[in-house]
Amino acid sequence: MRTTRLEAFSDAVLAIIITIMVLELHVPEGGEWADLTPLLPVLLSYILSFVYIGIYWNNHHHLLQTVERTSGGILWANLHLLFWLSLLPFATGWMGETHFVALPTALYGFVLLMAAIAYYLLERQIISSQGADSILAQAVGRDLKGRASPVAYALAIPLAFVWVWASVALYVAVAAMWLVPDRRIERVLR
Amino acid sequence: MRTTRLEAFSDAVLAIIITIMVLELHVPEGGEWADLTPLLPVLLSYILSFVYIGIYWNNHHHLLQTVERTSGGILWANLHLLFWLSLLPFATGWMGETHFVALPTALYGFVLLMAAIAYYLLERQIISSQGADSILAQAVGRDLKGRASPVAYALAIPLAFVWVWASVALYVAVAAMWLVPDRRIERVLR
Amino acid sequence: MRTTRLEAFSDAVLAIIITIMVLELHVPEGGEWADLTPLLPVLLSYILSFVYIGIYWNNHHHLLQTVERTSGGILWANLHLLFWLSLLPFATGWMGETHFVALPTALYGFVLLMAAIAYYLLERQIISSQGADSILAQAVGRDLKGRASPVAYALAIPLAFVWVWASVALYVAVAAMWLVPDRRIERVLR
Amino acid sequence: MRTTRLEAFSDAVLAIIITIMVLELHVPEGGEWADLTPLLPVLLSYILSFVYIGIYWNNHHHLLQTVERTSGGILWANLHLLFWLSLLPFATGWMGETHFVALPTALYGFVLLMAAIAYYLLERQIISSQGADSILAQAVGRDLKGRASPVAYALAIPLAFVWVWASVALYVAVAAMWLVPDRRIERVLR
Repeated sequence: MRTTRLEAFSDAVLAIIITIMVLELHVPEGGEWADLTPLLPVLLSYILSFVYIGIYWNNHHHLLQTVERTSGGILWANLHLLFWLSLLPFATGWMGETHFVALPTALYGFVLLMAAIAYYLLERQIISSQGADSILAQAVGRDLKGRASPVAYALAIPLAFVWVWASVALYVAVAAMWLVPDRRIERVLR
Repeated sequence: MRTTRLEAFSDAVLAIIITIMVLELHVPEGGEWADLTPLLPVLLSYILSFVYIGIYWNNHHHLLQTVERTSGGILWANLHLLFWLSLLPFATGWMGETHFVALPTALYGFVLLMAAIAYYLLERQIISSQGADSILAQAVGRDLKGRASPVAYALAIPLAFVWVWASVALYVAVAAMWLVPDRRIERVLR
Repeated sequence: MRTTRLEAFSDAVLAIIITIMVLELHVPEGGEWADLTPLLPVLLSYILSFVYIGIYWNNHHHLLQTVERTSGGILWANLHLLFWLSLLPFATGWMGETHFVALPTALYGFVLLMAAIAYYLLERQIISSQGADSILAQAVGRDLKGRASPVAYALAIPLAFVWVWASVALYVAVAAMWLVPDRRIERVLR
Repeated sequence: MRTTRLEAFSDAVLAIIITIMVLELHVPEGGEWADLTPLLPVLLSYILSFVYIGIYWNNHHHLLQTVERTSGGILWANLHLLFWLSLLPFATGWMGETHFVALPTALYGFVLLMAAIAYYLLERQIISSQGADSILAQAVGRDLKGRASPVAYALAIPLAFVWVWASVALYVAVAAMWLVPDRRIERVLR
């Protein structure tokens, strides 16, 4: 079983997730600035989640390039990842529409944490199917970012009930960490 | 006519079905635990249907790998399957939002039953187009799961009006049956 | 410019159209038969449109297999077809939710008519780009169905204001005409 | 890293954007002409945005055909473009539902402007990754349309607060400019 349909299906699901999040930006009835301002937190949470789905798509893309044959285990580990990511539009909308209140912000971190764990499990499935000389095992050997992210999310969840903006700052920081150094590493490799 | 576009179209429809189901998780206005709890049955029915669509995608994937050329009959048998699966988001939302009341739970089983029949008809179309030495005919020869599932759904429909949780237990059991042994068989084959 | 992306994009748009139509089946609040019955006309119009989109996807599939290189003209003729088909969910929902009242039923026919014209224009674009020895020109030479359909739609539009069920019967008849004989011709060809 | 998944993902996102815009055409409760007329401005803004997404898809298609290998920079420049285009359904719905009031019409121009800038940045990323003998650099050397469009959008934004129909006329004119001459150039090239 080749990976073509696995990639196509994942691409389609991620494309739909990234796009239906924008449906939480409900078109206001009036046409004034005052109608737009309550949407600002929704827009900010949308931007954050757009970047996160972009990061996942990007990493997923790299991950599956190391896979030659899929197995039932890989298919289900992949669906498990897509499941948690499919809850991101809900968590994003709730966090944005309640204007970054404690519980929704903690739930956002919980969904990110579960997605990170699901991504890790997918990596493990692929490595175990590749056997001893796994390309992926070598590639993720020094995966500091992959280990730091779930720790940051796990910290952000209780933190949301103490000081919500510290949680949000952690989410932004993790996203920035994934965005920025990837380019640097690529340049080094070139 | 190759199967590429048939697969691409089915993947896209299944990806959309699996993702729009999450839109039934309406973002609540408040940001407290009390706002989240009424969503729990909706979430549970979403998880169940996510697994079912995952199973269908997985099996559909295997099924079409035995097909080399499509025909009008295969195209329409496939669309017939997608039609019943496209009603799953409605049935899922209704069952979840009414908190597992009798009729919606029976309807959920009816949609699953019709999808199972549609899947069987698609299998028949492919086998008849492959002729006497059909690969698929051999592969599904001892398809116990494929025969047990519609029986379970047919039982669950009247059962929903007697004791609704027995129906739900049957739906969960069938999904678990498809999830678990597939891996075992794969391991045996390896 | 190859047709791969043109097909992929059209497949995705048609898959989304066929699936978002089901969103017009709004989940009712109650869980009784009485909550389900007002949805019946919406379901019937959904089935009709599902079949129509299936027919268009099927024919589009065949049509593009005769194309080797796309041009700006083909791309835009294709988008023009997708535009009219994208209005079908609206027309379907309106016809279904108003329980087959005159104007919405006429509008449904208008959208079908415009889609049929757009399909014809796409055919013309492909034929003119293929030049004198066009494969498509030969294939559609005796295209009786392609000519009868727009005539039927054009009849159904005014008829909706006289006797609405005659219009609906025409829509069903045209869909049936496309569904049934295709298989017969295929069998003859084999 | 090949461009296949980049194209597939972009196609899916653009297909979803172009299709969910139609969801702003809310199905009216009544079935009379009077129920349809308030939807006319929504339909007009939908047509305009449909054409714009069509143009972007068309140009994106051409753009990526010059790319052989993607990089992190190209992936993120592409996601940046998709982000701004994903805001178009919101801007379209707001402009249409407020019947072309000043602020929503200006916001529509702002989203178009940011998308044009994002497209330009994507072009730059591709050119810089291709090095000195870039095919794309030669192709866009005399890209008058690509330079005129953002200027027109930048003009249309303040103009919306003075005379809103002048802004709308500018949006229509830019779309027409992209639609019409492309065919002429193609014919010349042939």
